[in-house]
Amino acid sequence: MPYFDAASAAPLHPVARQALLAALDEGWADPARLYREGRRARLLLDAAREAAAQAVGCRPDELTFTSSGTRAVHSGISGALAGRRRVGRHLVVSAVEHSSVLHSATDHESRGGSVAEVPVDRSGAVSPAAYGAALREDTALACLQSANHEVGTEQPVAEVAGLCRDAGVPLLVDAAQSLGQGPVPGGWSLLAASAHKWGGPAGVGLLAVRKGVRFAAQGPADERESGRAAGFENIPAIVAAAASLRAVRAEAAAESERLRALVDRIRSRVPALVPDVEVVGDPVRRLPHVVTFSCLYVDGESLLHELDRAGFSVSSGSSCTSSTLTPSHVLRAMGVLSEGNVRVSLPTGTTAQDVDRFLDVLPGVVAGVREKLGAPAAAAPSPAAPAASLVVDALGRRCPIPVIELAKVIGGVPVGGTVTVLSDDEAARLDIPAWCAMREQEYVGEEPADRGSAYVVRRLS
Amino acid sequence: MPYFDAASAAPLHPVARQALLAALDEGWADPARLYREGRRARLLLDAAREAAAQAVGCRPDELTFTSSGTRAVHSGISGALAGRRRVGRHLVVSAVEHSSVLHSATDHESRGGSVAEVPVDRSGAVSPAAYGAALREDTALACLQSANHEVGTEQPVAEVAGLCRDAGVPLLVDAAQSLGQGPVPGGWSLLAASAHKWGGPAGVGLLAVRKGVRFAAQGPADERESGRAAGFENIPAIVAAAASLRAVRAEAAAESERLRALVDRIRSRVPALVPDVEVVGDPVRRLPHVVTFSCLYVDGESLLHELDRAGFSVSSGSSCTSSTLTPSHVLRAMGVLSEGNVRVSLPTGTTAQDVDRFLDVLPGVVAGVREKLGAPAAAAPSPAAPAASLVVDALGRRCPIPVIELAKVIGGVPVGGTVTVLSDDEAARLDIPAWCAMREQEYVGEEPADRGSAYVVRRLS
Repeated sequence: MPYFDAASAAPLHPVARQALLAALDEGWADPARLYREGRRARLLLDAAREAAAQAVGCRPDELTFTSSGTRAVHSGISGALAGRRRVGRHLVVSAVEHSSVLHSATDHESRGGSVAEVPVDRSGAVSPAAYGAALREDTALACLQSANHEVGTEQPVAEVAGLCRDAGVPLLVDAAQSLGQGPVPGGWSLLAASAHKWGGPAGVGLLAVRKGVRFAAQGPADERESGRAAGFENIPAIVAAAASLRAVRAEAAAESERLRALVDRIRSRVPALVPDVEVVGDPVRRLPHVVTFSCLYVDGESLLHELDRAGFSVSSGSSCTSSTLTPSHVLRAMGVLSEGNVRVSLPTGTTAQDVDRFLDVLPGVVAGVREKLGAPAAAAPSPAAPAASLVVDALGRRCPIPVIELAKVIGGVPVGGTVTVLSDDEAARLDIPAWCAMREQEYVGEEPADRGSAYVVRRLS
Repeated sequence: MPYFDAASAAPLHPVARQALLAALDEGWADPARLYREGRRARLLLDAAREAAAQAVGCRPDELTFTSSGTRAVHSGISGALAGRRRVGRHLVVSAVEHSSVLHSATDHESRGGSVAEVPVDRSGAVSPAAYGAALREDTALACLQSANHEVGTEQPVAEVAGLCRDAGVPLLVDAAQSLGQGPVPGGWSLLAASAHKWGGPAGVGLLAVRKGVRFAAQGPADERESGRAAGFENIPAIVAAAASLRAVRAEAAAESERLRALVDRIRSRVPALVPDVEVVGDPVRRLPHVVTFSCLYVDGESLLHELDRAGFSVSSGSSCTSSTLTPSHVLRAMGVLSEGNVRVSLPTGTTAQDVDRFLDVLPGVVAGVREKLGAPAAAAPSPAAPAASLVVDALGRRCPIPVIELAKVIGGVPVGGTVTVLSDDEAARLDIPAWCAMREQEYVGEEPADRGSAYVVRRLS
């Protein structure tokens, strides 16, 4: 039963399991105590810190273990902002950061700070020039992920780090998705990561803060982990995290190449096998194991459900799979189709057979969902008497229905005529323009309406 | 090799180990995902929450899992204070709370809030009347531990809860030391606990917030655990924590009685076996497994070291075992001797033989340390020509030297004469009055001096 959601959580690596078991017996005591059980725990903790620091590329005393990657990000951002409060309260992030970064930014704004969000191109990458332009005299901190968690696109971290260095601004890199594959290049100042993304256990994050970076830990004082991560150290899990990071790194070169080829296969085959699909994210500058595509006229929830029934576990950035009923902020920032969105992220050890089975199953699953939703055939027949303009009322209908309704009637207006879609679904704002781009029709724009918005499309062909 | 520091961290309970192993395979995926691995993880998480809530005595939807007991306390206090910010910014705590509570209070003060610390008596307990008197119209939150972590004294939680209810103030109970033995009585509003105190794994705390208690989680938003504990859930550890809580509770009645008898044996035998010892904490209203005593003319660090060499792992509240070189805030608040302090906390399964071996070893260890330090014999001989008053310069000397020097010369003044001890050691402020009480001499008081303080003692006998 192939599990294709490694970017959410990877199954426990066998080395992590082994290390965890050993450390349960040896590492349960308080490492701050001077008796033998405490000294043993301290030795394990020190050795894990040494190993993790080597993998990160920092000094052991620059590295603290947190209780999750999210906590590492929260503490890293709040500590760096507080440490440079005299410089200013301006924070720069990319528009496609992980929610832990964006929620930290919102929190900062709610306390009177200011935030600049650097946009991304259609591949999901920031441009170094745009990022550099966002840096100001009062910028206290800049954040950039090493690679995007939803579409796999790598960010130009080394270039942005150079610009930050020139501007005297510390750069925090969220390396959650890439640390298993290799160290982050370039001169980062702070780095955050999460063990369960590389096959370590849950409950362990890493926060590295380079010597010389001003940092003032926020929240109640706590003497553990250099005052940067409150609470009793989870040493067995820390030991397992460090051991699996080493193990995964040792396999990384060969395994990354293998997974990259499997992902290339998905990237090239899916558009050939499934009509009306958009594969998103940078095809080259990308994580080896992640690929994301969106299918017109399909809702993500049904798609995930049917794939799960067929034995495949994947995730989706479609609005219907989100508790807020909005499409993923990453897809929105990229301006790409969000309906029928599927992220495939391959764990270590995924076989070519698993991928081929997925490619066998996918077309039928997509076709089945489209049929159930009454999606239009590839070329919708023109009705007998075309009207110059039509209005489609899709109010109260959720993604992908507004786009399906649009596609059904576009043949009912002459070339040059318009279709206006009334919709109060958040996904329509993203998916109607994306449909126009895929179908080579003109997206005229969005107008306010009594309820929701009116999206105007001009037929070009 | 007996480990007698269960109040710091208990070794992993066999049931916790078993549950953890099973959940490593079944509970590693993201419980927010809809595919089978995610659903499986969610089922485990829900079952663990149900079991833990039953043990706590709350509804499952009132209980969140945090990454540690410290985090549960931090989040509980900050969330409750923010939730009642309109009422006021006054926080009430006891003087002997765990550092996670006191550090939260300091953090609250640093943000403009006010804090009242309710004192304790010599047994370490608050009086309900004093606690009630500290509640004000603008009190947003009150905190009281179920039992003290250093001396084992139980607090009058039910009485204080009643007073808080009458005053309309929510009460947060830190139940870290007692939850393994049984639910907290009375009408608490919030409750915090820590799994590794009851033989669960590190990395799991509990925060219960009763329905109807105003609560506003602080820090960056996060959708997990009702928004009250950021970061990916550590389900294997949570499952192990809940399973071991059930297992420990099932054994609690019989085991508590057994440990209580062993502790009674230590409480009665130590003063008989070792001269100049003060056993502290309430002899009756106490945790079953914790006993603390202090030995005159001994430094805690040497004592711990020698006990460790003899195979016993204990902890100490003496200043020399603290990174800040101040005695434990608990012993200070109680006004009891801090030098040569030893806390013995027995884990589940401790045998009578272990305790007897400890009682065999202790007198020799204490005598050895005293001899090395040149401690005075029980009755110091009076010198030939007593002076009416003497000054002892113990500047730069650490605990227990100032007290040893005092004891050495007190026979050198006539009854009614005084000894003034000059000391810049924080422990002297606590231990010189404590010595006077033990020796039935009069502690006259403390006066400022060029360096440190001058402590004046009048000989009465």
